[in-house]
Amino acid sequence: MQQNVHFLTIATADLDAARAFYTTAMGWTPQLDVPGEIIFYRVAPGLLLGLFDATKFTEDLGLDEDRSRVSGLTLAHNVGSPDEVRELATSMEEAGATVLKPPRSGAFGGVFHTLVEDPNHVIWEIAHNPGWHVDEDGTIHLS
Amino acid sequence: MQQNVHFLTIATADLDAARAFYTTAMGWTPQLDVPGEIIFYRVAPGLLLGLFDATKFTEDLGLDEDRSRVSGLTLAHNVGSPDEVRELATSMEEAGATVLKPPRSGAFGGVFHTLVEDPNHVIWEIAHNPGWHVDEDGTIHLS
Repeated sequence: MQQNVHFLTIATADLDAARAFYTTAMGWTPQLDVPGEIIFYRVAPGLLLGLFDATKFTEDLGLDEDRSRVSGLTLAHNVGSPDEVRELATSMEEAGATVLKPPRSGAFGGVFHTLVEDPNHVIWEIAHNPGWHVDEDGTIHLS
Repeated sequence: MQQNVHFLTIATADLDAARAFYTTAMGWTPQLDVPGEIIFYRVAPGLLLGLFDATKFTEDLGLDEDRSRVSGLTLAHNVGSPDEVRELATSMEEAGATVLKPPRSGAFGGVFHTLVEDPNHVIWEIAHNPGWHVDEDGTIHLS
């Protein structure tokens, strides 16, 4: 198995709220937006985040069990400074997200971060992490 | 907010089982493996998949509610042909995954796919999708 994720698909209870949050408020550009079905955003080279209507997500899986409640994952987005962490947390909150943990210093490594829940209950860690960086070619450094 | 996900972190009940599956059986190379805590795999340029011990995931979030059960997401991995879909489903099953939907043709677009659940209950769609391709620079085409 090649070491690649090509789509990350998340069950989304309210697709209009998700669009208002990511496209309108956060300024993201959808790669494809099919109202009532799915919105795709490119969130890394070769990777699409798909926000998929929760009812259709469940139909598509075709399992007996309902697995449309979002749980067990967090997404992280790194920014350049503690001030940018604070500013983005404020912008996300103004756009309808919930700050679960206010911006604060992490336990180690000079990390400064906050936890913010989007309107669809996806939890984002917004972080400044001086020990992390990505080269032009996508190589990731962690220290 | 820049349109980037840098970490995708998934609560993992059995980290040793996850390592046996991805590192040993699937042949993935961890970027960092801290036994009992977290394993990071690079799964796209600039993106790390973090398999995070479920107990520590919960402690780290510090919420009243337990959100460590994996639900509401699927990951997709595209391969080059229907035969590769079948072969990978077999390999994953032999390594301890569960085939939820056997390899079959999709509803449209010439897609051929299967749903496979990893030992941590993460659902993968393994697909051959002739209408999808990624350029060298990470640009994604969907038709």
